[in-house]
Amino acid sequence: MSGTVKAGEAGADSRSAESATWVRRSEVPPFSPAPGIQIQPVIGKSLMTCWIAMEPGAVVAEHSHANEQLGVVVEGSVTLTVAGVTRELVVGDAYLVPSDLTHKGVAGADGVLLVETFVPVREEYAKAWRAIAGE
Amino acid sequence: MSGTVKAGEAGADSRSAESATWVRRSEVPPFSPAPGIQIQPVIGKSLMTCWIAMEPGAVVAEHSHANEQLGVVVEGSVTLTVAGVTRELVVGDAYLVPSDLTHKGVAGADGVLLVETFVPVREEYAKAWRAIAGE
Repeated sequence: MSGTVKAGEAGADSRSAESATWVRRSEVPPFSPAPGIQIQPVIGKSLMTCWIAMEPGAVVAEHSHANEQLGVVVEGSVTLTVAGVTRELVVGDAYLVPSDLTHKGVAGADGVLLVETFVPVREEYAKAWRAIAGE
Repeated sequence: MSGTVKAGEAGADSRSAESATWVRRSEVPPFSPAPGIQIQPVIGKSLMTCWIAMEPGAVVAEHSHANEQLGVVVEGSVTLTVAGVTRELVVGDAYLVPSDLTHKGVAGADGVLLVETFVPVREEYAKAWRAIAGE
C-alpha cells in the first residue's frame, strides 16, 4: 500500500497524530508477553487495539487490570474464563471484560487470532511494544 | 454455545454488568445507518466495538465526531478518506481516526467487514441499536 506509514516510524503509535494513522499488520513488530503469544498493538490516545495471535494451547495466565477489555475472535477458537465463568469462543464471538475482573485464556486446537481493545491504553503493553519497536 | 446470553436480553449491552458479557454475532440484531451497511454493536462502559458489514460499493458519507475511532479490516476491502487523505485498506490493515477529523468510506468490490471501536461510546449508534434490539 503506497504511502502507508511504517510502524518503526510512527505507524502504530499515534500519541501526537492529528491526522489518521494507517497501519498494516505485517509492518507492526510483535512483542511476546508469554510463550506462544504475539501481540501487535495500535495505540491511540484513549484506546489500544491489539492483534493477539496465540498458538494452539497457548495460555494467558489468570490476571486482572483496571482497563476495560473488549475482544473479537477473528480466526480459530479460545477458551476464556472470566470471574470463574468459562466459555469456548469461536469466530464471530465477542467478549467484554469489565474492570478488575480476573480472567484467563487458552487457545484452541488451531490457535486463535483476537482483535482486543483496552480502555484506557494498557500501559504495560505499550511499554513492552515500544521497547521492541524502538519508539 | 450453551449459556450464551442473547442480545435481546442483555448480551450486547453491558451497562450494568459486573460479570463478563458474551456475545455471538449472529444473535446481535443489526441496525442500518445507510443503504448496504449493517452495524452490530457490543457496548461497554467506556467503549463500543461494532461489526460493520458493508456491501460492495456501499458508502459512509463524510462526517466527523468527537469519538476516537480505531478500526481493523477483517474481510474484504474498503477505501477510506480521512482529512483529505485516501487509502485502500485490505484484511490485516487498521486505521486510527482522531477526534473530530472528517472521514468517509466506500466498500470494495467484495464488500468489507470491519471491527471498529469508538471511545467514548458513540451514543447515536447505541440509541439506534437499542431501538432495534428493544432494549
